[in-house]
Amino acid sequence: SETKKLLILPGDGIGPEIMREVARIMAWMSRVRGINFDITEDLVGGASLAVHGVPIRQEVIDEARAADAVLFGSVGDPKWASAGFDLRPEIAILKLRQELGLFANLRPAKVFDALADASTLKPEVVRGLDIMIVRETVGGIYFGNPRGIETLPDGSRRGINTEVYSTSEIERVARVAFDLARKRDNRVCSVEKCNVMESGLLWKEVVTDLHAREYADVQLTHMLADNCAMQLVRNPRQFDVIVTGNLFGDLLSDLASMLTGSLGMLPSATLGAVDADGRRPALYEPIHGSAPDIAGKGQANPLAQILSFAMLLRYSFNMLEDAEMIETAVANVLASGLRTPDIMSPGMAVVGTEVMGEAVVREL
Amino acid sequence: SETKKLLILPGDGIGPEIMREVARIMAWMSRVRGINFDITEDLVGGASLAVHGVPIRQEVIDEARAADAVLFGSVGDPKWASAGFDLRPEIAILKLRQELGLFANLRPAKVFDALADASTLKPEVVRGLDIMIVRETVGGIYFGNPRGIETLPDGSRRGINTEVYSTSEIERVARVAFDLARKRDNRVCSVEKCNVMESGLLWKEVVTDLHAREYADVQLTHMLADNCAMQLVRNPRQFDVIVTGNLFGDLLSDLASMLTGSLGMLPSATLGAVDADGRRPALYEPIHGSAPDIAGKGQANPLAQILSFAMLLRYSFNMLEDAEMIETAVANVLASGLRTPDIMSPGMAVVGTEVMGEAVVREL
Ligand SMILES: CC(C)[C@H](C(=O)O)[C@@H](O)C(=O)O
Ligand SMILES: CC(C)[C@H](C(=O)O)[C@@H](O)C(=O)O
Repeated sequence: SETKKLLILPGDGIGPEIMREVARIMAWMSRVRGINFDITEDLVGGASLAVHGVPIRQEVIDEARAADAVLFGSVGDPKWASAGFDLRPEIAILKLRQELGLFANLRPAKVFDALADASTLKPEVVRGLDIMIVRETVGGIYFGNPRGIETLPDGSRRGINTEVYSTSEIERVARVAFDLARKRDNRVCSVEKCNVMESGLLWKEVVTDLHAREYADVQLTHMLADNCAMQLVRNPRQFDVIVTGNLFGDLLSDLASMLTGSLGMLPSATLGAVDADGRRPALYEPIHGSAPDIAGKGQANPLAQILSFAMLLRYSFNMLEDAEMIETAVANVLASGLRTPDIMSPGMAVVGTEVMGEAVVREL
Repeated sequence: SETKKLLILPGDGIGPEIMREVARIMAWMSRVRGINFDITEDLVGGASLAVHGVPIRQEVIDEARAADAVLFGSVGDPKWASAGFDLRPEIAILKLRQELGLFANLRPAKVFDALADASTLKPEVVRGLDIMIVRETVGGIYFGNPRGIETLPDGSRRGINTEVYSTSEIERVARVAFDLARKRDNRVCSVEKCNVMESGLLWKEVVTDLHAREYADVQLTHMLADNCAMQLVRNPRQFDVIVTGNLFGDLLSDLASMLTGSLGMLPSATLGAVDADGRRPALYEPIHGSAPDIAGKGQANPLAQILSFAMLLRYSFNMLEDAEMIETAVANVLASGLRTPDIMSPGMAVVGTEVMGEAVVREL
């Protein structure tokens, strides 16, 4: 098979330093397993604003389109906090999602055995937790029109955003959820606010219809978003796959992540549609942010970035064996007691970004 | 002072049976303290649908307007689950909010000392928790236009809802939050998604301006809604007052409630604007639902309904002493070891709705 094209976008804050630990793993793959990638690297977020004056250039979007997969670090930089709505570093990720049609964000919330105590929830509530949230990411209120702030004749202002979901947008993301469920515990919970929003009512109907037509073997339940927020705290292990819209998914996936107590461990994938040539655009990123407060100090946890790379190998390159090797290496390093400061607990050995990355390579 | 007018709307499920325990307390107030109310009672939700074919009649809204305060039970009945969008029992509460202009929902999330173990969170994370969420309730995506489901020429459909917030809507609810903060720990956290929504951007600007103009003595911070969902799990005690829009408030207040582990204990108030005569429309309700699964079994916890009544005495009738007496009685009954099944824990005595209500009266 030909060499896979990888676009690497480290971004801001701790992005570049944790991405270096992925490079270490790629070097190992090349050296030991003879696997090489065709790598392009570019700037996004505050890093791009500083050099090019925009959070993402058209060239970068074109590079992303040409790549077989994108490995993303994180964006966000206090320096650009007041740059204005159109110059937010976040634009980088929003544009990539929309221009590449990355509509399905896969957000696993998984508790690692070695880290069950890291949660603020009681260990008996979260031990073994393994939820997959599938969040729609190119529709809903993030992108709907009309939007903006208008000034009325009396000088007062109105802020407006529009939530829109179409049959096909709902169907394609529900399909991703059902397909994933079949490889897991075969249960999907669809989440909306159909009791107050018509877009939620349509969401529920479309998911129900699709289920009856094509996925009757999967167990489907429906839940209101407010209740889902409660149930994630009350008894998170009741869930297998959750599928929901862009805005609810934003809150609920972050909430679910925090249940694990170790954000520094959690990867994510955002997938587009398979095209005529069988190619599927995809972006992988840790769920944590750019953590400007610890950037450059060598303390950041590189494991979520490394696990995002493993997810990339699995979903985009079908390199299941390599993905699993990396995941096992990470679990073993944790079991051996190494901890970056964010996941430190009594009796463990605190290490920095590099030592953690090296330990994973040693395990490999 | 003249007799206060109270409208009582028990609603569905456990609503009527827990409301009877409030009646017990009112009987005590009349007997012992000589305080009487002018009480009207009516149907809402499924109970109204069954008799009148609508979830709430115009008469009931007029009664609510004429009353000095409304004490609400809960609505929601599986019998009406497929009644259609315009016949949902929930319409009752949505109409009351909108027609009476009940724009500020006050949702305390408080951990009772005796119940700190009831939470799924570690006791050291939630002990002493005392958050007040102020949620906007007559604007935002719940009521904005255009809304609905439209069918396109190709037969596909689109669900649409519109989030709209105006300067004055944001200002008046922020004012409620700042005023409350001054009587508490003097800190307000304003929550939106200004990084993706212009309505959130306006929200942040308006709250910031109002703060600078009139509330500079209160500490104001801003937080994105997804981060707030995380922070509520990570370290909920960092918050004093949270102010946010209708939809975020719906999820975040339910999430915050669940942190306490005892939904059956939590009251809420929804306040309107003070009119020219100094009257302020207000509705009080427990935050739990109608719990159809245990309705009629005499097992429901009446304490949230009783505490909602105490909140009513405090906010609407300025009867601070009576409110405090009831709250103290509830705390003492809990300390004495009585528990309804929902808050039962080892070593305590499980009791039903009536025994719990009687115990509160005995304490009084
Ligand atoms: C960066 C930001 C625009 C983004 C979002 O709100 O979607 C982030 O919170 C996420 O969840 O990926
Ligand atoms: C009953 C329903 C319409 C309501 C809402 O979503 O606002 C409820 O969840 C609440 O929070 O009071």
